[in-house]
Amino acid sequence: MSEKTFGCRFALSIMSDRFIDIILGSLAKTDTSRIEASTGRLSTLYRGDREQVLDAVEGCFTHAFTEGVHMTMEATFSTDDGACRTGEAGLPNIAARDIHFPCNAKMALYTMKADPAEATRFARDCAVKHGVFVKDDYYCTVLSGDIQDVFRTTEEICAYAERALDRFAFELTVSVNSPTAE
Amino acid sequence: MSEKTFGCRFALSIMSDRFIDIILGSLAKTDTSRIEASTGRLSTLYRGDREQVLDAVEGCFTHAFTEGVHMTMEATFSTDDGACRTGEAGLPNIAARDIHFPCNAKMALYTMKADPAEATRFARDCAVKHGVFVKDDYYCTVLSGDIQDVFRTTEEICAYAERALDRFAFELTVSVNSPTAE
Repeated sequence: MSEKTFGCRFALSIMSDRFIDIILGSLAKTDTSRIEASTGRLSTLYRGDREQVLDAVEGCFTHAFTEGVHMTMEATFSTDDGACRTGEAGLPNIAARDIHFPCNAKMALYTMKADPAEATRFARDCAVKHGVFVKDDYYCTVLSGDIQDVFRTTEEICAYAERALDRFAFELTVSVNSPTAE
Repeated sequence: MSEKTFGCRFALSIMSDRFIDIILGSLAKTDTSRIEASTGRLSTLYRGDREQVLDAVEGCFTHAFTEGVHMTMEATFSTDDGACRTGEAGLPNIAARDIHFPCNAKMALYTMKADPAEATRFARDCAVKHGVFVKDDYYCTVLSGDIQDVFRTTEEICAYAERALDRFAFELTVSVNSPTAE
């Protein structure tokens, strides 16, 4: 099996004067004790077991959700060849899966494989299966639906990418409470 | 030569209660008469001549800059095989090049070529040449410096990518007025 370490680099953007409190509150509520976590000026980096990284990203985003406040998250999921300490098994943020709110999202799966179209198709089919597919658009696939369905789509694509693609990057942008109609 | 159309899909995130006014003001000040432009719920899409698209993106971002207001832009630069109407030559937003402010940025160039490391190296060398390279980090290269040097780096990488890479995506995130020290 692969020796690669899975990870996610993400940033929350909160369109409110209260953005610092909301972000710090959300980071504090997220249990990152079983992964490697570091926050810098541009983004937060989580690395470790794929399911535990995704659990922490979902925890952080859902904790930041604030009624009526427009927020987006941009996230890059990828792997690297570095080592990473392994923590205890289990998903400490699994309670986040009970939190529901509507969202809009876009995603793009990049691969250096011979057939990138196959990977794009897999990602698209995942979104269709979870009921969040809206359309293919320039440079991305557009999603809309419940946040839980978007995270389940993300999980399935990341599991596929880690297993089937040698090198990849998966880009996801999620938006909630946007004032822009479409 | 290639029949591909260059484009940029980008979103501004303004961490302020005034985010709607700032974004709409910036979009209104940007001359997009020579490219194809459409704004949706998640992002704005510009397609057309590479130099004119980059000119419009730079115009939009620099017009949105507001003293003391934290703002980020995430942008994906790529090409597609579709047609695009061609406008008059020239760069209508070129005055944006006289606007200076410090920024932090990160970027990643994805290619489906045989040697993605070569493309990453080219992007890194560009950043070094323009004096904005900070470090290589997980899944990205970190930049810091004057906004003009970041946009000149972006231009050079996009010109290389359009010329040398069959399929690519270039991801850029720029942040200004961040309250986070590093």
